[in-house]
Amino acid sequence: MRRAGCFDHVEGLDLNASATARALQLGVIDSAAAEAAAAITKADAVLISIPTNGIAERVRQIGAHAAGRVITVFDAGSVKGSVLNELRSGGSVPPWFVPSHPMAGSEHHGPASADADLFRGRQVIVTPQPETDRAAVDRVNAWWRAAGATVVEASTQIHDEMVALTSHLPHLVAYAYMNWVDQLHGGRPRDFAGPGLKDFTRIAASEPHMWRQISLENRAAILEQFDGFAQSLEKVMEHVRQGRFDELEALFADARAARMRLTGTSNE
Amino acid sequence: MRRAGCFDHVEGLDLNASATARALQLGVIDSAAAEAAAAITKADAVLISIPTNGIAERVRQIGAHAAGRVITVFDAGSVKGSVLNELRSGGSVPPWFVPSHPMAGSEHHGPASADADLFRGRQVIVTPQPETDRAAVDRVNAWWRAAGATVVEASTQIHDEMVALTSHLPHLVAYAYMNWVDQLHGGRPRDFAGPGLKDFTRIAASEPHMWRQISLENRAAILEQFDGFAQSLEKVMEHVRQGRFDELEALFADARAARMRLTGTSNE
Repeated sequence: MRRAGCFDHVEGLDLNASATARALQLGVIDSAAAEAAAAITKADAVLISIPTNGIAERVRQIGAHAAGRVITVFDAGSVKGSVLNELRSGGSVPPWFVPSHPMAGSEHHGPASADADLFRGRQVIVTPQPETDRAAVDRVNAWWRAAGATVVEASTQIHDEMVALTSHLPHLVAYAYMNWVDQLHGGRPRDFAGPGLKDFTRIAASEPHMWRQISLENRAAILEQFDGFAQSLEKVMEHVRQGRFDELEALFADARAARMRLTGTSNE
Repeated sequence: MRRAGCFDHVEGLDLNASATARALQLGVIDSAAAEAAAAITKADAVLISIPTNGIAERVRQIGAHAAGRVITVFDAGSVKGSVLNELRSGGSVPPWFVPSHPMAGSEHHGPASADADLFRGRQVIVTPQPETDRAAVDRVNAWWRAAGATVVEASTQIHDEMVALTSHLPHLVAYAYMNWVDQLHGGRPRDFAGPGLKDFTRIAASEPHMWRQISLENRAAILEQFDGFAQSLEKVMEHVRQGRFDELEALFADARAARMRLTGTSNE
């Protein structure tokens, strides 16, 4: 967004001052803020990019410091329902807060991993609430589009269910898979690992604390998606056990077609 | 191997004549053979790259046509035990047959997907038998190394167990995952799919018939690995169900460390 010229000046703030210093040194931000109140008083827009369990509190803090000025606040959190429930139970969802979730990222983190092309060709899910100001949504959508993303608007419930399916549960499965790989013959599987395993488990290199928080906050949707996946997996394995290889091949073909629809390719 | 100059002339033979014609047109082979007997009579070396259930028969056919000449035969099949059992029960394992399995490949297939760098930096598992001629193993190892691969020698049993873990079961899990993604809200998950899901399910675009055959031939090892993985996954999900998020984070951290050992990175 900064590269696309959406903002005149980008100020960074992090609980860890050395992260902000490093971001400044790398040219990722224009200046480093020392504390929130002063930064908010000057800001027209704030992007909250922190673990989801802290987002509602920060939104309230920004509301207090902005003191009625026009400000647009958006986030990049992986879970929406828990944040909005917390805001609503603590008073209200401010009209200037636009919940958003970019479907992008990597297992890397920290200022050195900043990448202006991270959102190019990716989707950002925006979940406007009945309370949300449409003009604020339009501004946030325009900023994400300037970063190269496609904006998809969805309800909070659909968002949380879909990300449990497309992101959260795959992380849990990949973590579980790596734990099993590691138990068997210690480090020996490394000799046998091809690109298939490496892609399949890439997300198991993701930051454990962040994924603990996501698992906690989207727990119900994750458990629901797990039940569906477990049935699908059991169906595949039961065909293997019972020697029903025609049926197995048919399931593989269905999965392959679904995967091609997912990536929009007809002959990948 | 052809690019590295291991062979003076590479002749291709496929049941599907149009595939051989296309390979010739693309410059992947030097000539196209019309039938096996004539091609074998001229060959010093044969690489059998076909579904694993046909490999033993081809090895016997080559033995018959080679008629005592020095010939080196190797394969690229994903399963070893079933092929060797079939050879042994049908008479013997020829000393000139070197079972090998490159831990490389992609979800693409056909001559247009030929890639001289496919094996660069990958491992090839070679499983010499008590019957195997050491000089033949050394020749095959040298060819794989010329293609940029690292050769790892292992027993048939370790090979089949390890590939069930590092390749076969991940394919079954990815196929099952895609089937579930497709059942929920039809095509909607496409809007929500980020790079995590795309990498996690890349192998679900693999060729269904080939994976049916692999599932059939390495069935026992796949089922054994599934039992271990299912326990690991159940442990993760039970922590989520019971709200044991400290324990969950510890499992994530173990998995992340294992994943880093797998890829040989300390800070990926």
